[in-house]
Amino acid sequence: MPDVLVILGSKSDAAVGEKAVEMLRRFGVSAEMTVASAHRTPDRVKNIVLGSEAKIFIAIAGLSAALPGAIASITTKPVIGVPVSGKVNIDSILSIVQMPPGIPVAAVGLDRGDNAALLALEMLAIGDERIRDGLAKYREEIADQVERDSEEVR
Amino acid sequence: MPDVLVILGSKSDAAVGEKAVEMLRRFGVSAEMTVASAHRTPDRVKNIVLGSEAKIFIAIAGLSAALPGAIASITTKPVIGVPVSGKVNIDSILSIVQMPPGIPVAAVGLDRGDNAALLALEMLAIGDERIRDGLAKYREEIADQVERDSEEVR
Amino acid sequence: MPDVLVILGSKSDAAVGEKAVEMLRRFGVSAEMTVASAHRTPDRVKNIVLGSEAKIFIAIAGLSAALPGAIASITTKPVIGVPVSGKVNIDSILSIVQMPPGIPVAAVGLDRGDNAALLALEMLAIGDERIRDGLAKYREEIADQVERDSEEVR
Amino acid sequence: MPDVLVILGSKSDAAVGEKAVEMLRRFGVSAEMTVASAHRTPDRVKNIVLGSEAKIFIAIAGLSAALPGAIASITTKPVIGVPVSGKVNIDSILSIVQMPPGIPVAAVGLDRGDNAALLALEMLAIGDERIRDGLAKYREEIADQVERDSEEVR
Amino acid sequence: MPDVLVILGSKSDAAVGEKAVEMLRRFGVSAEMTVASAHRTPDRVKNIVLGSEAKIFIAIAGLSAALPGAIASITTKPVIGVPVSGKVNIDSILSIVQMPPGIPVAAVGLDRGDNAALLALEMLAIGDERIRDGLAKYREEIADQVERDSEEVR
Amino acid sequence: MPDVLVILGSKSDAAVGEKAVEMLRRFGVSAEMTVASAHRTPDRVKNIVLGSEAKIFIAIAGLSAALPGAIASITTKPVIGVPVSGKVNIDSILSIVQMPPGIPVAAVGLDRGDNAALLALEMLAIGDERIRDGLAKYREEIADQVERDSEEVR
Amino acid sequence: MPDVLVILGSKSDAAVGEKAVEMLRRFGVSAEMTVASAHRTPDRVKNIVLGSEAKIFIAIAGLSAALPGAIASITTKPVIGVPVSGKVNIDSILSIVQMPPGIPVAAVGLDRGDNAALLALEMLAIGDERIRDGLAKYREEIADQVERDSEEVR
Amino acid sequence: MPDVLVILGSKSDAAVGEKAVEMLRRFGVSAEMTVASAHRTPDRVKNIVLGSEAKIFIAIAGLSAALPGAIASITTKPVIGVPVSGKVNIDSILSIVQMPPGIPVAAVGLDRGDNAALLALEMLAIGDERIRDGLAKYREEIADQVERDSEEVR
Repeated sequence: MPDVLVILGSKSDAAVGEKAVEMLRRFGVSAEMTVASAHRTPDRVKNIVLGSEAKIFIAIAGLSAALPGAIASITTKPVIGVPVSGKVNIDSILSIVQMPPGIPVAAVGLDRGDNAALLALEMLAIGDERIRDGLAKYREEIADQVERDSEEVR
Repeated sequence: MPDVLVILGSKSDAAVGEKAVEMLRRFGVSAEMTVASAHRTPDRVKNIVLGSEAKIFIAIAGLSAALPGAIASITTKPVIGVPVSGKVNIDSILSIVQMPPGIPVAAVGLDRGDNAALLALEMLAIGDERIRDGLAKYREEIADQVERDSEEVR
Repeated sequence: MPDVLVILGSKSDAAVGEKAVEMLRRFGVSAEMTVASAHRTPDRVKNIVLGSEAKIFIAIAGLSAALPGAIASITTKPVIGVPVSGKVNIDSILSIVQMPPGIPVAAVGLDRGDNAALLALEMLAIGDERIRDGLAKYREEIADQVERDSEEVR
Repeated sequence: MPDVLVILGSKSDAAVGEKAVEMLRRFGVSAEMTVASAHRTPDRVKNIVLGSEAKIFIAIAGLSAALPGAIASITTKPVIGVPVSGKVNIDSILSIVQMPPGIPVAAVGLDRGDNAALLALEMLAIGDERIRDGLAKYREEIADQVERDSEEVR
Repeated sequence: MPDVLVILGSKSDAAVGEKAVEMLRRFGVSAEMTVASAHRTPDRVKNIVLGSEAKIFIAIAGLSAALPGAIASITTKPVIGVPVSGKVNIDSILSIVQMPPGIPVAAVGLDRGDNAALLALEMLAIGDERIRDGLAKYREEIADQVERDSEEVR
Repeated sequence: MPDVLVILGSKSDAAVGEKAVEMLRRFGVSAEMTVASAHRTPDRVKNIVLGSEAKIFIAIAGLSAALPGAIASITTKPVIGVPVSGKVNIDSILSIVQMPPGIPVAAVGLDRGDNAALLALEMLAIGDERIRDGLAKYREEIADQVERDSEEVR
Repeated sequence: MPDVLVILGSKSDAAVGEKAVEMLRRFGVSAEMTVASAHRTPDRVKNIVLGSEAKIFIAIAGLSAALPGAIASITTKPVIGVPVSGKVNIDSILSIVQMPPGIPVAAVGLDRGDNAALLALEMLAIGDERIRDGLAKYREEIADQVERDSEEVR
Repeated sequence: MPDVLVILGSKSDAAVGEKAVEMLRRFGVSAEMTVASAHRTPDRVKNIVLGSEAKIFIAIAGLSAALPGAIASITTKPVIGVPVSGKVNIDSILSIVQMPPGIPVAAVGLDRGDNAALLALEMLAIGDERIRDGLAKYREEIADQVERDSEEVR
């Protein structure tokens, strides 16, 4: 049973989902990726979400990206929404961000599967020191990378 | 049993819904209005839609207006979506328009409950001569009104 | 005589129109595709629309996409508008969605000829059990496809 | 017979139209204002435009402002389009600006009935020295006004 | 020591912050509200964040809303960002959503202090059954409210 | 001395300008193309405009496309502005459309050098029957082309 | 002779200009405010700018806000542009920000006359220790104000 | 010690930064380029800015481009912000432009590293006649280039 379940609204969102799964596994957190469309398979979404023991859901979708909100409507577990880029971009961003009062979704940036995973890790780290330490180390690594980038650029 | 069911995502969308109901009744088509939020009451939406013998659904919602798509995901009856105005406006318009392949929603303009009703009437008129005649007459009336408006403006 | 007439504002919209025609024919609904520009050939639009016995019009156009509205202004049959993508995208979407009171157009998503066809089928299905059954089956197929996609992604 | 015909898409656009008519009359150019909706009264638009001996049309409309383009589609006389402000604003601007190749509309700014008139006057001035002189004088006046405004502001 | 610290970018964001604090206290979660501007008081932001034992930060800001990202840059605790409405709205939404890889912020909707609190509660509920139960009950309450709203609207 | 002077804000706008020049010459109207940047060469703009006996100016520019307005500020001859596409597109459109009261610019669509020329021709046609006839014939040609396109698409 | 000249595109921008003048005078920097429209009074703009011994220009304008760019085109002194809010807002922001290569304008936020002044002060402070000290003190004051605001909010 | 320090939010912004450095060096002004992310390395940003004797900072960043504002929050030296293009573009522009009162950033156009450098040069030229002369000469050169471009285009 994965701690974090990554749900794609469409197979075409897989590259964004991979970024999330890889990041989670890098921190030793179990993650799985599945496809379940809010619009094409609402029952499947419901079954997957209610049947899952995951602690957090990451929902990835483009266009009128309803998936994160659809998941949030049937669980009170945290739902992280990742808008996927396309021809308009503002569509998926606003569809995920502008949730009505009562049903929150945590939106991250366009195509930011990696940040969705890091946000999930931060949530898990509230009660898990090992992840907390991992995140601190990761921050150091990306800070070091900036310094190396700076050397290169100079 | 109403022929057209008008579903509001929130009580605050009632004024837009009234426009739809009034227009439908004007043409002798039975209509009812209910509130069912895709995000706050997904089961209620499902129960209402699957339990209804309405031929057409009009779904009215603002923000990340998921209601029309949520209804469309559980029925193959026509779903007309009405975006409701707010602080951003582009959010509800794009959330309703940009549906993924396979699950259509018929979007009308911002706050255009009246046009949602007329579109429903046009759909019903495919198989109903009386409504067809009513629509033709209505077009004449609004055309006449334009002429009267013109007199006044001059 | 086709049941659904697909009208392109420009030859360059043909790929989007094909998606509509193919989908309609898949359900055994007769469809034809023609080109008639609201701006370059207003008389042609009028002649085609008034001379047609189609039950539904699908109008496909980009830029200040006036075609769906122009058709809607001369018929009370349902008009489905498909905005075509280009350099701005918001232009064709808003031009088709933001119709004034009295003259409805059913807008679908950017380049969504397929959804326009499905919406037309849903309208026809109000009075046609065979199409109704076909749509139910199609929904099952796309739901099954999501499950197969999910297998692949995993 | 007016030299410039101001056509409103709706009675509610009258205030913007007044600005145009007043400006035209100030320069001694005959102008009239009428209401004719592209969507609600396409025949009326056609009759008015084809029956008019006006040299220039000013078309004023909001939302998916089709009126300027509809007029341009049936005449090769210059058509000036004025987008009217509402809840979205970008809708009427883009609908009027983004005309397809072959059928030009001259778009001016949001609610700028006055500038539509001045643009019409500039067109007429190509062959009318009196208007040319009037425009030169008007420019001096508004420049003087800027200087007076500057005194006041200081 | 509050479990959730609500940080306002400006005193003028207080009404949005109140919504968050009230919601948190309703669930028995300790919360405090403070003002610390990323741009005007970067040291204060750092001191508050590093000195706090809060488990989650809610950052509320308008315009080029840098506060959520600034907090996220100095902690790996979850940061929830609330864009505040103003003259543009898309500015604060995009500034909070479009974080670069590595440093996540959980964006909620415009002025949605209430949803920020609910999202924080969902995070805390991962390890706290009492809050989990409270959230389930709250969902029932808002669902009941929808039913009551529906009665009223009918 | 050309009847219409096409002024490019930058050499990179030449393709859009060519469309205008070709169209004008097709109607036997003399046209010339020059480069003069409002921002880099304000004096050159002034000298060219005041020194020109052209009846109409077509100004083509991208980004914060100031050229049409800059020309309009120093002449009362008609100025047609063509926004050029780039990374944002809304920038050049709005910069050209949203002129202040008193100084009109006639905006056409993004990259629509052809329509700018046709608009210029319509202006000249007010006092020139030959161009008027040419425009009528051109309309017929593009209408015929639509019919041929329709054959091909079918 | 003022060190900083604040130029308004229109009398209606005076409130934004006042914010700039007050801020400059607070730091003992001489400032004056005048009105000069790029579109209505291009010569006046040129005369004022070339005749001024100001070290920096602050240009304040709405709509297709050409004034900052127009000033920048005739001087190599720093020009700070302030977009003024209206019905669209994105128009004045993009018109001022999206300057072409070679002619820079320093854009500040919508209606931010105060920040324009502070930016001018920062430029002057490069060679003026007294202003440098004043700015440091001002930063302390606004930081203190944030702390007082925080007390109040708590 | 460089007079102008160019700080990139990410290595991927290097091409935009090069434009700035080249332009500055062309005028004999010392410049250096470094990478320091506001979000990934806030301490590095602080150390670099407080440790630098540069007179002006140029900050280049995309997405929710916080870097210019982060630098401005810790120095009263002028900060020039360059938004970098990506999938949305309006995000980085608005994040940099819409700074709150008290902390100014001088925004230039999308990817306009060159203009950022020219703006820095204009600031330095307030107290440096040599640069002033250089800028005047540069303006002549780009004006001459426009004339040569015009020859070529003709």
